[in-house]
Amino acid sequence: MALTLAELAATAQAELRGDPGLAIDAVATLQDARPGAISFLANPKYKAHLAGTRASAVILAAADADDCPVDCLVSDNPYLAHARVMAALYPDKRCPAGIDQSAVVDSAAQVSSTASIGAHCFVGAGSEIGDNVVIGPGCMIMENVIVGAGTRLVAMVTVCHGSVLGERCLVHPGAVIGGDGFGLANDSGRWIKVPQVGRAVLGNDVEVGSCTSIDRGAIEDTVIADGVKIDSQVHIAHNVKVGEHTAMAGCAAVAGSSTIGAYCTIAGGAGLTGHIELADHVHISGATAVTRSIRKPGVYTGTVPAIEHADWLKNFARLRHLDDLARRVKALEKQLADKNARDKDTAD
Amino acid sequence: MALTLAELAATAQAELRGDPGLAIDAVATLQDARPGAISFLANPKYKAHLAGTRASAVILAAADADDCPVDCLVSDNPYLAHARVMAALYPDKRCPAGIDQSAVVDSAAQVSSTASIGAHCFVGAGSEIGDNVVIGPGCMIMENVIVGAGTRLVAMVTVCHGSVLGERCLVHPGAVIGGDGFGLANDSGRWIKVPQVGRAVLGNDVEVGSCTSIDRGAIEDTVIADGVKIDSQVHIAHNVKVGEHTAMAGCAAVAGSSTIGAYCTIAGGAGLTGHIELADHVHISGATAVTRSIRKPGVYTGTVPAIEHADWLKNFARLRHLDDLARRVKALEKQLADKNARDKDTAD
Amino acid sequence: MALTLAELAATAQAELRGDPGLAIDAVATLQDARPGAISFLANPKYKAHLAGTRASAVILAAADADDCPVDCLVSDNPYLAHARVMAALYPDKRCPAGIDQSAVVDSAAQVSSTASIGAHCFVGAGSEIGDNVVIGPGCMIMENVIVGAGTRLVAMVTVCHGSVLGERCLVHPGAVIGGDGFGLANDSGRWIKVPQVGRAVLGNDVEVGSCTSIDRGAIEDTVIADGVKIDSQVHIAHNVKVGEHTAMAGCAAVAGSSTIGAYCTIAGGAGLTGHIELADHVHISGATAVTRSIRKPGVYTGTVPAIEHADWLKNFARLRHLDDLARRVKALEKQLADKNARDKDTAD
Repeated sequence: MALTLAELAATAQAELRGDPGLAIDAVATLQDARPGAISFLANPKYKAHLAGTRASAVILAAADADDCPVDCLVSDNPYLAHARVMAALYPDKRCPAGIDQSAVVDSAAQVSSTASIGAHCFVGAGSEIGDNVVIGPGCMIMENVIVGAGTRLVAMVTVCHGSVLGERCLVHPGAVIGGDGFGLANDSGRWIKVPQVGRAVLGNDVEVGSCTSIDRGAIEDTVIADGVKIDSQVHIAHNVKVGEHTAMAGCAAVAGSSTIGAYCTIAGGAGLTGHIELADHVHISGATAVTRSIRKPGVYTGTVPAIEHADWLKNFARLRHLDDLARRVKALEKQLADKNARDKDTAD
Repeated sequence: MALTLAELAATAQAELRGDPGLAIDAVATLQDARPGAISFLANPKYKAHLAGTRASAVILAAADADDCPVDCLVSDNPYLAHARVMAALYPDKRCPAGIDQSAVVDSAAQVSSTASIGAHCFVGAGSEIGDNVVIGPGCMIMENVIVGAGTRLVAMVTVCHGSVLGERCLVHPGAVIGGDGFGLANDSGRWIKVPQVGRAVLGNDVEVGSCTSIDRGAIEDTVIADGVKIDSQVHIAHNVKVGEHTAMAGCAAVAGSSTIGAYCTIAGGAGLTGHIELADHVHISGATAVTRSIRKPGVYTGTVPAIEHADWLKNFARLRHLDDLARRVKALEKQLADKNARDKDTAD
Repeated sequence: MALTLAELAATAQAELRGDPGLAIDAVATLQDARPGAISFLANPKYKAHLAGTRASAVILAAADADDCPVDCLVSDNPYLAHARVMAALYPDKRCPAGIDQSAVVDSAAQVSSTASIGAHCFVGAGSEIGDNVVIGPGCMIMENVIVGAGTRLVAMVTVCHGSVLGERCLVHPGAVIGGDGFGLANDSGRWIKVPQVGRAVLGNDVEVGSCTSIDRGAIEDTVIADGVKIDSQVHIAHNVKVGEHTAMAGCAAVAGSSTIGAYCTIAGGAGLTGHIELADHVHISGATAVTRSIRKPGVYTGTVPAIEHADWLKNFARLRHLDDLARRVKALEKQLADKNARDKDTAD
């Protein structure tokens, strides 16, 4: 579809500088854009590509507008404006309502007449599928699940019994909502399973990435609040609570019974130990292990960056002797202070 | 279902202090319990909630019993007693035996008449599904697989050809048992696949979490011994052996041909390199990389805990100069010793 | 099947030392081999097992040939020769062409008459399934997907709309190709989804492990070049480019818009941050976080190895005071130099 630059400016809530009637039918990067496409500049790393872009228009911040060789949409938040332009130019395809012939829907399930249930889906007894829900092919919706209006499971999603998904959620393939948590009691060395009877409860507008697992609660529920966005390969253990509008990037993980506040970001590969709490507005850097509660908003990091292997060999081997090194420095300080004192006595 | 406190005490092998006839129909946390529920105190973090609990009874250790405002079950291992009470109050639902109409079962597969095969399942030629096995919807059981009596695959589990699952195993959605290992030979820069012809063999009472992958062996089998418990998003590579009653938490990973002893615990996000061995009773902390064999039981850790970003910036940048720092400390020690010797000579 | 040692030598491009007519019907490890099996010695760790092996023949390097108690195949690259022998002795089973009755194939999809589509598969409109493709049971191939000739999806693979797989690829169960990337713009604290309209494009001879997710591009494509091998539980984010013949081991992860060169290796559990570049022939060690671009071929490491917990407690606590320690060493150096200068003045 094509829209005019004026229509896109309105959608993006951005200031139009250029031809309002310019027809735009695609979004492309600054480097790859062709005429007819709109591009965007949100990361300064890519500013070098602005001057030579073949895009017909660019979304950017006011500070970059003077350097723009073509029409532009000026926004305080160019990436947000870009998101809105994308949504306008690439609207979701609607799936036709109805249940695929190959789907198996239990007679005790309720499926809205406006919902779409794809090939090879299963919907168990007691489950409720809301209005305009799209369940793509190969999804297994177990018993007593609630899927709120407008939610979309792309394909191959498993939602275990009793789980609740809010409205307008988006769940990608391979995700598992409400699998058992890892609850084990030890009986003289052998592990005895603790039945997991809590639920996984997702609020509205939650996104869950591919191959992500959100375990059900042990007794209480695992709760993902409204607007939380979770990337691929993330693991959320039992009883975890994630606050509103928190985002968790790929391969992040949260151990059992931990609580993450609202408006937090957990970067890729970061992990939280169990039974801790993060305040609102806490930001955890990539590949960082959080081992204690964090009460104060801010950025927290424990990333150990890669170095050349030969450097690593000689430097990291010292890590296990750091305590010894610190003690030796302390001894030197004392020795030198004593010596200075003695010398001063001698000089006096 | 409701049970009396006396019945629960017997089940839990715990000492009853209070009314044997008290009816209990639920388990809840100390904070959330309502009358009729039993709660438990196993983690001292939650002791503060004991005094105000509205539970009708609490499972706890003898040391906490005097502080309990209600009836209690006293146990040396309150969490184990809790697990037993949970199992009594929340028994597994039995699935009716039989094969769902939508399932595809090869004519050369053997399925016990007491097994339950769910919607959209596939069972390949030569596979044997034992008594009372429950295979939930959307599971793909490839050729020549053996699933032992009483094992349950919750839903959407893939078991690749030739894999063996013991009795009473429990496998959660998205898990893949017996996928190919990562066997590659290098031919002048190009990778040549090494066919993976070993199997994945799971013992009895093994639990496998959501989205966990246990690769088949290259030549020998990958072997998961009896009673091993594996959480979600765990990766076990080819030829790995995991000993009896070892537990591996979420996002743990073991590279190829490594061996883990019995009664070990591998905490969340920990990883083992390939071709190493862990003795029995080795405990690896969260987010820890194990790069060498460990022969001695004990706890091993390499976790780098998160700190405030500004602190991280200045401290972690030093890591790559640690060797230099150590050398400078050594030089200082020598310099000062020499100086002391000279001063002594001068003073003599 | 059985082959003669001469046939295997030809296949393996190895020098035969022994009986050309010796019949070999299996490959086994040095320890487990029985007569009739061929074994291999590629890792010096296993040399100790050579003398006592019961294998009928062994593949090994010239340097080890004199120590071999049985016939042998001598190769400069014994592991590669082993791979070729494996492929000869354990050829892939051919699946019969045709579409399983339970599969749902859209009438607007094109499926080659030589392709095999398994039970419970879905193939969406506009998708093209090439010659000799094998799609195992439970795979969901969404709309407008292209699967090149000879590619095999083992089972339970999801390929999202518009994705492209080259020829002779091999994709293991639970893998998700072309799921949405994690594109979010922030609107006053709330996350707004950025539609992901790029594709996931895999070249020829790509292998993708179990439960691995390769996200589609945001605007540009995510591109996995020819010959790339990806293990289980790997996450590749949107817009990532992986160069030819690079291998990525289990649980590795690459954040968005990063580029990895050709002939690289990324070991298990290693992670790359977003928007960086690795040159060709870069090798990242296990459990290593790469936070900056690497322009120079070589090995890079940031692994923090596990130590005994008591040692960790005292040593790692020092990490957050490393800057202070370095400053104190610098102060000591200055103090001692000043003192030496003063003493020299005094002595003069």
